[in-house]
Amino acid sequence: MAMTLYELVGRDDRRFSPFCWRTRLALAHKGLAAEIVPVGFTEKETIAFSGQEKVPVLVDGNKVISDSWAIADYLDDAYPDRPPLFGNDAARGAALFVNFWTDRQLQGDLFGLIVADILDHCRPEDRDYFRDSREGRFNKSLAEVQAGREDRLPAFRARLEPLRATVKRQPFLAGAAPAYVDFIPFSSLQWARGVSPFKLLEDDDPVRAWALRLCAAFDGLADSVPVYPL
Amino acid sequence: MAMTLYELVGRDDRRFSPFCWRTRLALAHKGLAAEIVPVGFTEKETIAFSGQEKVPVLVDGNKVISDSWAIADYLDDAYPDRPPLFGNDAARGAALFVNFWTDRQLQGDLFGLIVADILDHCRPEDRDYFRDSREGRFNKSLAEVQAGREDRLPAFRARLEPLRATVKRQPFLAGAAPAYVDFIPFSSLQWARGVSPFKLLEDDDPVRAWALRLCAAFDGLADSVPVYPL
Repeated sequence: MAMTLYELVGRDDRRFSPFCWRTRLALAHKGLAAEIVPVGFTEKETIAFSGQEKVPVLVDGNKVISDSWAIADYLDDAYPDRPPLFGNDAARGAALFVNFWTDRQLQGDLFGLIVADILDHCRPEDRDYFRDSREGRFNKSLAEVQAGREDRLPAFRARLEPLRATVKRQPFLAGAAPAYVDFIPFSSLQWARGVSPFKLLEDDDPVRAWALRLCAAFDGLADSVPVYPL
Repeated sequence: MAMTLYELVGRDDRRFSPFCWRTRLALAHKGLAAEIVPVGFTEKETIAFSGQEKVPVLVDGNKVISDSWAIADYLDDAYPDRPPLFGNDAARGAALFVNFWTDRQLQGDLFGLIVADILDHCRPEDRDYFRDSREGRFNKSLAEVQAGREDRLPAFRARLEPLRATVKRQPFLAGAAPAYVDFIPFSSLQWARGVSPFKLLEDDDPVRAWALRLCAAFDGLADSVPVYPL
């Protein structure tokens, strides 16, 4: 029985949640099919059955799993004969480090670079919710949060240095082929390109070359939705 | 035949090179014995046979390997029947990310917090070399580089957030037991405690609890040299 993945949708069928992309890529990596159910920011009732309010939510038979990390863990445990997302405890642990680096540092930097663009790509009925919930965190308008982003670009690019140095030495973080540790930071760039024409990376940045390799993976899965150029 | 490890030594037999600690812990992890040869900053001729000027240098039979990352790679390849430092490509790649994060970001932060203390722990005959080579990078005295370090402590502690969040969830980065991915950032803290009484971590910081677990590993190897309290 095919699984069902509930994922965030914006206007014009935009799919930009970084957390949902981690799960999409994880499913593709393991060769598992899922029916994709789009969920707007305000359609909390659609996923209320999961006992919480955030996508991604994966339904596999009678199992309901939310949180992208928990989903990755579940998929490796439930489908051990499929290609591994981690492969051993050390790989899983180091990927958890990369997960926190991405969530708590990289995405914080990115948020200030694209947040007003996200608002522009929300469905009309979700705009007020998105604006009010995010502005509440900053006590200023999203346009003000994003203003002057060119000045913050060097710090964002410097943040990427450990990723850059690694993918200068080898094609993917996981080595010759990608694995979940690659999907985590790539999904943040996929988030940005889903909503923002702002150019984050220099053309000759090894991070961009790595991201383009991931765009091509799984028959161009990450390019199969509306996106801006990398 | 036992291996030989050339490692940095300071005054009073201090052993504070973070790169040498990575190798010391890697050898202990794999259960491999090595004769340790101390080398002062200015004793370049002692390791000239390696074709470069930096420790650690590992000699294993007719093999000479320098650079801590290359040594870890060598040990896992040459001794596959011993406990793995990585275990698979994804673990190795993610550890390389952590290696660059540590070398290019964490240690940069740390340097400004302890550099004058390093000078105080150099052998008398190495002091001029250390001071002149490091001051050349900054165009100011090491005391000036270190001055005001209390003000930079919050940024250093914030940098550690991905490590902190991971070791709040599990005992070590590598999971239930440590592996090379743990030895990399731990060796930076071991560097600091080898030369500096400056308190880097709050008593209740999960990073400190993790570091104490690593101090206890391998029969207290990291505590077997002169160190300041964590």
